[in-house]
Amino acid sequence: MTSTEARKQQYRVIGTRPIRHDGLDKVTGRARYGADIHLPGLLTGKVLRSPHAHARIRGIDASKALALPGVEAVVTAADFPIHEDMEIDLVETLGNLRVLAENIMASEKVLYRGHAVAAVAATSAAIAEEALGLIEVDYEVLPPVLNGPDAMDANSPRLHENMTTHSVAKRFERGTDTGVGSNIASHLQFKLGDPEAGFAEADVIVEREYTTSTVHQGYIEPHTATALWDFDGQVTLWSSSQGAFGMRAQTAAVLGIPESRVKAIPMEIGGGFGGKLNTYLDPVAAALSRETGKPVKITMDRAEVFIATGPTSATRSRIKLGAKKDGTLTAAWSELVYEAGAFPGSPVGAGASTGFAPYKIENILVDGYDVVVNKPKVAAYRAPGSPQAAFAIESAMSELAEKLGMDPIELRLKNVIRPGDRLPTGVPLLPTGCEEMEKAMRSHPHYNAPIEGPNRGRGVAVGFWGNAGNSSSATVSVTADGGVTLVTGSVDIGGTRASLAMQAAEVLGITAEDVRPSVGDTASVGWTGQTGGSRTTFSTGLAVVAAAEKVRDEMVKRAAILLETEPEKIEFDAGTFKNGAGKSLSFQEVAAAQVRTGGSITASASSNPRQVGPAFAGHIVDVEVDPETGKVEILRYTAFQDVGTAAHPSYVEGQIQGAVAQGVGWALNEEYVWSEDGRMENASFLDYRMPTTLDLPMIETVLIEEPNPAHPFGIRGVGEVCIVPPMAAIANAVANATGRRLTHLPMSPGRILEALERPATNGTGG
Amino acid sequence: MTSTEARKQQYRVIGTRPIRHDGLDKVTGRARYGADIHLPGLLTGKVLRSPHAHARIRGIDASKALALPGVEAVVTAADFPIHEDMEIDLVETLGNLRVLAENIMASEKVLYRGHAVAAVAATSAAIAEEALGLIEVDYEVLPPVLNGPDAMDANSPRLHENMTTHSVAKRFERGTDTGVGSNIASHLQFKLGDPEAGFAEADVIVEREYTTSTVHQGYIEPHTATALWDFDGQVTLWSSSQGAFGMRAQTAAVLGIPESRVKAIPMEIGGGFGGKLNTYLDPVAAALSRETGKPVKITMDRAEVFIATGPTSATRSRIKLGAKKDGTLTAAWSELVYEAGAFPGSPVGAGASTGFAPYKIENILVDGYDVVVNKPKVAAYRAPGSPQAAFAIESAMSELAEKLGMDPIELRLKNVIRPGDRLPTGVPLLPTGCEEMEKAMRSHPHYNAPIEGPNRGRGVAVGFWGNAGNSSSATVSVTADGGVTLVTGSVDIGGTRASLAMQAAEVLGITAEDVRPSVGDTASVGWTGQTGGSRTTFSTGLAVVAAAEKVRDEMVKRAAILLETEPEKIEFDAGTFKNGAGKSLSFQEVAAAQVRTGGSITASASSNPRQVGPAFAGHIVDVEVDPETGKVEILRYTAFQDVGTAAHPSYVEGQIQGAVAQGVGWALNEEYVWSEDGRMENASFLDYRMPTTLDLPMIETVLIEEPNPAHPFGIRGVGEVCIVPPMAAIANAVANATGRRLTHLPMSPGRILEALERPATNGTGG
Repeated sequence: MTSTEARKQQYRVIGTRPIRHDGLDKVTGRARYGADIHLPGLLTGKVLRSPHAHARIRGIDASKALALPGVEAVVTAADFPIHEDMEIDLVETLGNLRVLAENIMASEKVLYRGHAVAAVAATSAAIAEEALGLIEVDYEVLPPVLNGPDAMDANSPRLHENMTTHSVAKRFERGTDTGVGSNIASHLQFKLGDPEAGFAEADVIVEREYTTSTVHQGYIEPHTATALWDFDGQVTLWSSSQGAFGMRAQTAAVLGIPESRVKAIPMEIGGGFGGKLNTYLDPVAAALSRETGKPVKITMDRAEVFIATGPTSATRSRIKLGAKKDGTLTAAWSELVYEAGAFPGSPVGAGASTGFAPYKIENILVDGYDVVVNKPKVAAYRAPGSPQAAFAIESAMSELAEKLGMDPIELRLKNVIRPGDRLPTGVPLLPTGCEEMEKAMRSHPHYNAPIEGPNRGRGVAVGFWGNAGNSSSATVSVTADGGVTLVTGSVDIGGTRASLAMQAAEVLGITAEDVRPSVGDTASVGWTGQTGGSRTTFSTGLAVVAAAEKVRDEMVKRAAILLETEPEKIEFDAGTFKNGAGKSLSFQEVAAAQVRTGGSITASASSNPRQVGPAFAGHIVDVEVDPETGKVEILRYTAFQDVGTAAHPSYVEGQIQGAVAQGVGWALNEEYVWSEDGRMENASFLDYRMPTTLDLPMIETVLIEEPNPAHPFGIRGVGEVCIVPPMAAIANAVANATGRRLTHLPMSPGRILEALERPATNGTGG
Repeated sequence: MTSTEARKQQYRVIGTRPIRHDGLDKVTGRARYGADIHLPGLLTGKVLRSPHAHARIRGIDASKALALPGVEAVVTAADFPIHEDMEIDLVETLGNLRVLAENIMASEKVLYRGHAVAAVAATSAAIAEEALGLIEVDYEVLPPVLNGPDAMDANSPRLHENMTTHSVAKRFERGTDTGVGSNIASHLQFKLGDPEAGFAEADVIVEREYTTSTVHQGYIEPHTATALWDFDGQVTLWSSSQGAFGMRAQTAAVLGIPESRVKAIPMEIGGGFGGKLNTYLDPVAAALSRETGKPVKITMDRAEVFIATGPTSATRSRIKLGAKKDGTLTAAWSELVYEAGAFPGSPVGAGASTGFAPYKIENILVDGYDVVVNKPKVAAYRAPGSPQAAFAIESAMSELAEKLGMDPIELRLKNVIRPGDRLPTGVPLLPTGCEEMEKAMRSHPHYNAPIEGPNRGRGVAVGFWGNAGNSSSATVSVTADGGVTLVTGSVDIGGTRASLAMQAAEVLGITAEDVRPSVGDTASVGWTGQTGGSRTTFSTGLAVVAAAEKVRDEMVKRAAILLETEPEKIEFDAGTFKNGAGKSLSFQEVAAAQVRTGGSITASASSNPRQVGPAFAGHIVDVEVDPETGKVEILRYTAFQDVGTAAHPSYVEGQIQGAVAQGVGWALNEEYVWSEDGRMENASFLDYRMPTTLDLPMIETVLIEEPNPAHPFGIRGVGEVCIVPPMAAIANAVANATGRRLTHLPMSPGRILEALERPATNGTGG
C-alpha cells in the first residue's frame, strides 16, 4: 500500500464516486437555467451594439424606437450614471467600477465592435429587435488598434485619452503612475537575483518569440439575465453566473443602490470557465425593469457572446532561457504583452507569476504589459493568463532540452521547484507534488512507449496555477430521518454539490446521499465568493467542514443526553455515538431525537483560508501531422496532476479531461478572426472551430495526490491548472513530429502547412 | 412614565411599526401562492369524494376513467399502503399516522361526505373532472351518526369497529385502554381538590348546558398542492401550508419514504388559522406524480375546503359553578363532549385545560370526551378547543355574577389567577397579567359608558391560551453594505417576517429595513416547527435572537481587529463598536470589512424554549338586538390582552381584530348546516355566513404588556387567545340586552327570535 492509499483509507466518503446530486435534473432537462425563467408580464430586452471598433458617440436618438408599439423602454449610458458614492466595497474586486459600468453601456466612446450603446424592452423579441434598428446613433468613427504590440506604439490610436501607464513591481501592488500617456495600462516587473549575470553563466541560451490569438471560453449556455425592479426599490435578479453574490455586488454598484436592495437568485449554469464572473446584462435588465415596472429578460445569442463578453487575451511573449550543459537553468527572462481588450485588466500578472513557477531559477526577470486594444474587454478563462505564458516558456524549455541533448522531462526534473523554494513572486512554495508528478510522467508507460509511424511525435509540458482562496459560507441542518441539508452560496459548475456534500458526509459519518445540497440565493446564505479560481471544493469545502463540525459537536451533546453521560465521554466514530460503556446511538437515532433533546440542530460557518495550496500539471501528448492537409491528430494524451486529495475522483478527472479538450482547441483551431476594421469574422460555432468528441481520443488522467496542508482532507483546487500545459505540449509534439517549431497559436492546418514549407530545424525535441 | 413605557424605551426597534417586508408583494399581487406554480408538463389532479357520510367501499373500478384520453393516472388507497416502517418520528406529532393516511384516502370505509376515495391526474381540469365521473365506486351505505352526544350512545352506529375508549387522567398522557368498544376515542379527567366538598360549601350554584356548531376557519385561500416526483425518487412539493417541515414530514410518512427525500417549498399562505397544519393533498399529488412522471397540481374548490378539510368541533358542554356569597368560587365542574369528526383527535384536551384557567379554584373536576362522528376530521382552529369551553364557562360566570348581584368583572377579579397559582392542569402560572388586564377592563371608558337605548346590552368574558413553544431555526448573514439577510423556516401568516426581522435588528443595532427576511424551504434552513400555536414571533424569535447574537459577537471580534484592540474591550451599543479610547466603527464599516478580517459573517441557531408564556384576553362588547329580525348588531367592541412586549403593535392589534371578527362570526352566524344523512347544506361563502366589514365596528384594542420572562424582549404569543372570549362576551351582551340566555352557537337571527318568544329570565348580567 502506498502512503497515498494508506492516507485515503482513513476516509469513508472522500475519494469515492457517488452520483452527483444535480445529475438527474440535468440529464432529464428539469434543471432550471437562467433562460428558463418566465414571469407574468415578462418583457424581452435586447441590446444595441456598436458596429464600429472605435468611435465617438455624438448622440443617440431613441424617439423612433420608443414610438414603436410594444416598446416599453430604452436605456442608454445616461441611465447608469457614475456616482460619487459608488465606491462601496465590492468585497470581491472586479476591477474599477467605472470600467465595469462603461463596459456595460458605452457613454462617450465605443471601444470595440459589439460594445453596448443602448437597450430596449418590448413585449416581444421581434418588436425589441425591430426597435434596435430604429435607434439612431451618431458615431464619429475613429481608427482602431487591434494588436497589443501595435497599441504599445506611441503613435497608435489611443483608446483612453487620459490613461497613463502604471508601473507595478510586485503582484497585487497598486503601482505608481508613470504619468506617461499610453495604451499600456500597466507595466509590471518581477526580478529575482541577477538575470544578466545568470545569462552570462549560461552554456546554452534559447531566445524566442511566441504569439497567441484571442480565444473564447466557449461555454454552451449564452449569458442571460432577468430582473424585476419592484415598486419599493427591491431588485431581484435571476441570472446565469459564477456567483450570485458577485452579480449582486456588480449590479448594485453599477446601479448605485445598496447591495442589500438586490437579491440575486443563482440559476444553473451551462459553463462559465471564468467568463461568467462579470456581469454584462443584469444591470441593463434591472434598469429596463425600473423604467417599465415589469420584469425584463435579456438573453444573448451566440454572436453576442463572442463579440460582447470576455474572451481571453491574445498575447506576444518573448522568452530567453539560459542553462549550464548539465541542464541547470542559470537565468530566465520573459516579456509578456497581453491584450486587455477595451479596458485595462488583462491577466498578464498571472502569466508573469506562473510561467517560471515549475522551476527553481536563481535569476529571473519578468516584464509584463497590460495593453488596451479595440477588442472586447477580456475576462477570466480557466487559470487566466497562465496558458499563454506556459505555451511560450514550455516550448522554449523543450527546445532547450533538445539543444542540450537532454530528455525534456529530465531537464524539468533537473530544475524542479520543491516545497520551500521561492516562486518567481518571491513567495515560498507550499507542499505540492511537482517533483512526484514529473517522476510519474517519466515512468509512465505512455512516456516509455515507442513512437511508431511517420509524421508522429511526442511532446510534454508542465504548468502551474496558484488557485484562489476567498471566503465562502455554508449552513448544515439535520433532518429527522438522519440526513442533513447543506446550503452554500457556491454556484455548481463542475460537480461541487457532490464534492461539498461529501465533505459534510465525511465529518458526520453519513453517506453523500444522506446530504441534500443546494445553492442558496443572496438572501438565504452567507456571503460567498464566486465559483472560480478552483476555489469551491477547497474554500467552500472549508466552510462546509466547519459547519458540519459544529453540527457534529452539537450531536455529541445530544447523544450524551440520550445516553445519560457527559459530552466529553462520547466517542464519535463513523456516524456512531458511543458512551464508552457499551451503549451507542446511530446518527439517525440522535437526529430523530433532536427536537426533544434541545431543539433542532443547525449550524453555519464561513471560510477564511490563510493559505490556499497551488497545483501543478504535466501533460504528455502524441500527435500525427498530416503533411497533405496540415491537420494535427491527437493520438494519445495523458494528463498528470497534483490534485491533492481527490474528493470525487471522477469529477477531478472530468475537470482535467475538459481542460485538455479546451487546450486542444486553443492549440489547434480556436481563434477570433479579425477584419482590418475590428470585426470578428467567425462569430458562430460553425466558424469558430471548437473540438468535438470526434477530434479527441480518450484523455487519460493520472492523479498525484499530495495532500494540501491548508485543507483538513488535503483537498486542493483542480479545475484550472490542467489547461496550462496542453498548448505547449502539443507544440512540442508537432515539433517532434515535423522538425518545425510553431510559435503561434492556433497551430491550424494552414499554419502547419506554411511551417512544413520551411526547412526542418529539429526532429527530436518533444 | 409607566413601568411598561420605561421598559420599552430600552428598545430601538421592538415596539415600532415598520412596514412589513412582504407587504408590497402582497398588495401588488406579486407574492406567489401555491396556486401560482406553473411547471412544464403540469397535470391537473382532482379528488373523487364520497357522497355518503358512512359507507363501506366494496370496490373501485377506475378502468373507464383511465381509458379517457388525457387521463394519465388514477390513485386510490391502495397507492398509500400502511407500512410497518412508517413509524418514523414525525417530530411534530400530528396524530396517528394511520389516521393521517386514512383521512387522505379512504380504504375500507368512507366516514364522512367528502372523504377522498380516489384521485385522477389529467392534462386538463375539464378532463380530470370528467374522469371523476367515470370512476365507479361500489358502496355499502351505512347509517351515520352526526352528533357527539348521540355517538356516545352504546347503540349508535360505530365508525371504527375496533376502537376502544382510552382513559386519560392527565393532559398529554398516553392513557390506558378501557377495552370498551365505543365512538368515544378518549375520556380525560382532571381533578383538583375535592369538588364534591367544594360544591357543598357553595352558597350559589349555576349549572347549565351549552352547545356549539361545527365551524370552519374560513381562510380565503383554498388548499393547493403541487408535487414533482423525480425519476430518482426525490420529491418536491410546493404547497400552501403553515409549515414546510410539517408538510415534508406528513407527506414522507404517508408515502413511506424518508423525509430527506422530500423537499417542501413553502409558498405564501392566504390564511390558515390552524387549518393548514395538516396535509390533505400533498401526498396525493405526489403519488399521482410518481405514477405519471410529471408534476401534478391539485387545488380544492371552496366546497371541498368546507367538506374535506378540518373545521373545528361542535361541542356540548355541561358546566357547574359553586360560589360563596362574596363571589369566591368554591368548586367548578365541566363535562365537555367534543366531536372529533371521523377520526380521533378533537381539541377537547385544550378545552378542558383552558376553560377554568383564568380563575384560582381549589376544587375542580373536568371530564372531557373525544367522540368520533360522521363528519370531516376536525383540525386546529385558533386556540383550538378553548373557545367552545370558554363560551360555556364564561356564560356561566356572568350568570353567576348576576345571581350574586355582582359586577361580572368584579366576580372575575375576585377569583383571578395570579402568577404562581396552579392552573387546572396543576402547573403553576408563569408571570402573566390576567389581573392587570381585568383591572384595565374595569377602569376602561367603554366599561364605564352608559348603555343607552332599548334592546341594547353589554357583555364581558375572558379567556386563556397556553401558547406553543417548539423548536425553530434561523440563519443570519451580514451583507457588505451593512444589512443582514435572515432566513427562518417559519411560514409568514401574520407579519412574522417583520416581527422576526425586528428582533434581529434590535440585537444588531440596525433598522428593520436593514434586515432582509425570507422563508426558507426544507432544504435551506434548519428544522422549524409549523406556524401555529402563536409560537412564531416567540420561538422563531428566540432562534433569530440567538443567531443575531452570534453575528454580533463575531462583529465585535472583527471590530477589535480593525480598531486594533481586544474583543473584550469593544463596547457595542446601538450599532456602533467603540474601543473605549474614543475610536468607533459603525455596523456598516465592520460589515464592509468582513471578508478581509476573517471571512464572511454568518450564523445559525435554533430555539428550544423550556417555558413558553401563556396569554389572557378579556373582551367587552355592546350589542343591539333587533326584536323584529333577531339580528344582533355589534355596537362597540374593546379587546384587552396581555400581549407581552408588543414586537410590532400594529400586527398585534391586527391579530386581535382578526380574531374578534372570526369570533363574531362564530357567535352570530357561522355553522355547518347538516342534512339528516350528513350532507353539509351550505358549503359556499354565500350560505356559510362569515362577517364582512359591514357587520363590524372598529374593534378597539388595549394592549397590556406584561413581559414574558421566557423571551429576552418579553415577547409572548398573541394570535390565538383573542378568539377565546368573543362568543361568551356576545352571549352575555345578548342576555343583558334581551333578558334571555342563549346557550347555543351560533346565536343566529332564527335562534334569537326563538329565544325572544321565551319569557325573560334576566336583564342585567353582561
